[in-house]
Amino acid sequence: MLSALGLARRLAAGELDAAAVIDLCAAAIAEREAEIGAFAMLDIDAARDGATRAAAALAATPLAGLPVGIKDIIDTADLPTEYGSAVYRGHRPRTDAAVVSMVRRAGGLILGKTVTTEFAFRQAAHTRNPVNPAHTPGGSSSGSAAAVAAGMVPIALGTQTGGSVIRPAAYCGVAGFKPSYKLIPTVGVKCFSWHLDTVGLFAADVADVAFAAAAITGRDLRVDGSAPATPRLALLRDHLWPQASAAMQQAVESAARTAANAGARVEELTPPPILEEAWRAHAIIRDYEACRALAFELDRHRDRLSPVLRDLLDAAAAITPEAYDAARRTTRVARRALAELMDDCDALLTPAAPGAAPHGLASTGSPVFNHLWTLMGSPVVNVPGLTDAKGLPLGVQVIGRFGRDRAALEAARFVEGALAPALGNAVAAR
Amino acid sequence: MLSALGLARRLAAGELDAAAVIDLCAAAIAEREAEIGAFAMLDIDAARDGATRAAAALAATPLAGLPVGIKDIIDTADLPTEYGSAVYRGHRPRTDAAVVSMVRRAGGLILGKTVTTEFAFRQAAHTRNPVNPAHTPGGSSSGSAAAVAAGMVPIALGTQTGGSVIRPAAYCGVAGFKPSYKLIPTVGVKCFSWHLDTVGLFAADVADVAFAAAAITGRDLRVDGSAPATPRLALLRDHLWPQASAAMQQAVESAARTAANAGARVEELTPPPILEEAWRAHAIIRDYEACRALAFELDRHRDRLSPVLRDLLDAAAAITPEAYDAARRTTRVARRALAELMDDCDALLTPAAPGAAPHGLASTGSPVFNHLWTLMGSPVVNVPGLTDAKGLPLGVQVIGRFGRDRAALEAARFVEGALAPALGNAVAAR
Repeated sequence: MLSALGLARRLAAGELDAAAVIDLCAAAIAEREAEIGAFAMLDIDAARDGATRAAAALAATPLAGLPVGIKDIIDTADLPTEYGSAVYRGHRPRTDAAVVSMVRRAGGLILGKTVTTEFAFRQAAHTRNPVNPAHTPGGSSSGSAAAVAAGMVPIALGTQTGGSVIRPAAYCGVAGFKPSYKLIPTVGVKCFSWHLDTVGLFAADVADVAFAAAAITGRDLRVDGSAPATPRLALLRDHLWPQASAAMQQAVESAARTAANAGARVEELTPPPILEEAWRAHAIIRDYEACRALAFELDRHRDRLSPVLRDLLDAAAAITPEAYDAARRTTRVARRALAELMDDCDALLTPAAPGAAPHGLASTGSPVFNHLWTLMGSPVVNVPGLTDAKGLPLGVQVIGRFGRDRAALEAARFVEGALAPALGNAVAAR
Repeated sequence: MLSALGLARRLAAGELDAAAVIDLCAAAIAEREAEIGAFAMLDIDAARDGATRAAAALAATPLAGLPVGIKDIIDTADLPTEYGSAVYRGHRPRTDAAVVSMVRRAGGLILGKTVTTEFAFRQAAHTRNPVNPAHTPGGSSSGSAAAVAAGMVPIALGTQTGGSVIRPAAYCGVAGFKPSYKLIPTVGVKCFSWHLDTVGLFAADVADVAFAAAAITGRDLRVDGSAPATPRLALLRDHLWPQASAAMQQAVESAARTAANAGARVEELTPPPILEEAWRAHAIIRDYEACRALAFELDRHRDRLSPVLRDLLDAAAAITPEAYDAARRTTRVARRALAELMDDCDALLTPAAPGAAPHGLASTGSPVFNHLWTLMGSPVVNVPGLTDAKGLPLGVQVIGRFGRDRAALEAARFVEGALAPALGNAVAAR
């Protein structure tokens, strides 16, 4: 994988220039893209032009010309944006999404658009998991996770409405960061559910993804400067815990144990029942809003929607405003309960997914372990590093408090670092 | 003016058909549009085609084929959408905004796009006030308010980020309704500030605007069925009160007195200081978000922005994430304080604007009386009916509790009805 921080340091030291970084990406793409299918659209030449034309100006920016992959649910004025849907074949938006402008302002170069499932919902696309191409990379940010995992790009943008950043990051063994709700604007991102859609990021490890988030948002989110503070963690075995595979349960327990051995305070917390109620409310809010957000597509292009989406939207028409309002009220109560639960705690540890990436490409896997945290608006990080017996990645989900994104990233970095010696990789020493 | 409810009743009774309603609009447009300039784009023929082609199906819908004007900040796939900006000259979105689909599903016919100021900010457009064309209609939903006031259309959609629904409604003497934040989706509405932008409605009087909101959202918002419940009201003389003209102060006081005489409990409330702090936070949130939401326009089309907008966006680049986060925290605290303040109260009464519509078209007037309530996400209604010595409308702003939109509309209808006998109009008897 390409480390964003490692590349940024070599760019700053003059060991590399931005065009050479593009060449690294191009080499990985030439080697693996035909098999993996991470990109919906590539424009390596434009990125290379950008790297050479504005070399001096780029050097002064936070991203210093690092290439970025943009999930194809996010509008770009210079590249087609098809939302993974036949309805938008060849669509060219008039305007860049806000986050695309933020990437450009930070000195990032857009390398291409990464594959999304149809409107970032469930209908799987063709992307394969770089760790084992017989397996799904997860979804809906399939291409972004796979592109980072295959070393094709150091940074990629995704979005999460259910579990579309954390799950593919977990399946592909990369760091994924879903910030607090609205930390990154969704302006120009095709909407599925306005109370849930969240822009997130992928990079090689936690310090890389924090670096990218800091550069793009201009916020104090980096966690690479010094050893992370010792966090107060809690293992959360909620009602979904029995749905996690034995390997996944062991992975989360081992992350908790290893963090404790490294000095973290680790307790076990029992979630109040309102959180399970809120978990159930997620689908009501998502579907009620999708029925309106995608009304034009359903009403005018019904036959060009996948059956799974069409069925969802048809069923959603029966959700009453009263049921929706009740789900929103449950959400508000649950947010307060979660804030109380985490009053003395920096982050929760849970499975990022039920297990490793499922075999085959028919399903992108299950987001049930991610729904609640998207609804709560919590900052969430996938900590990569652990694998199952077959070598497939197992992600640990680190959930912070709303608005405390840096603390969530720092806790995730601590967990990642604690796991590293056991894994023999170099994360802790970075 | 064309009453939406009155027309709906005549349609239901078979006294009119949808094509005849289009003819009423077309006649008013033929008579006044050249002078008023309410529309950015008209397609009367398409609306008439819609009325005749689907007459039977329309009859069964809540809007029964009533014509609707759509502010040109809201995307329409069948009509150009220019956001009042030279940057988007001739722009034709690929997709209808969610609320446009909701209008169509409800059986509304899109008559045209109404004039907006540039990106719904301050740069005035050419629309004139139908009550007195030497005066501004207000902004940014200039065309929607003017089109309803001139009897060109019974229902029009607007948006409010500062005071862009309530102020033009007040200046033009029509009912304006800014629902609770996110009650109507902003998907497909050009974004200025994602925490503030709110879709609202204009119609002839409060019962009409409630009818339209109910039809479009599918919610129980109508207040025309029976006499409105007697509300608990509060007159709020906050720090802005001295900025209201003497005539405006008298209008609000007279509305309070008249409502009390009609049986309402009317008290006086003193706002806690946090509300004034929140009022100041509005601009920080708006500008920080606009700097990102309009990043593409600023970075790529700088020279085609108005100086007032360019200056705002340039200055906004200096707002730090810390200042923005502090403004958001102030907002959350203020929302709780407002909920407590209104614990025993259905609605507050304040001026809808500093006074009547200013003379001339250079300025769209001041939204200072509206900023706080947009930030609080409160449902707000402009109650029309009162006028100053020159016959220019003076609006009374009725502010409800978040999520209690029906109660806000009912309180507004009560105030409107209480004022009606004094005014000698027929509102109370409708």
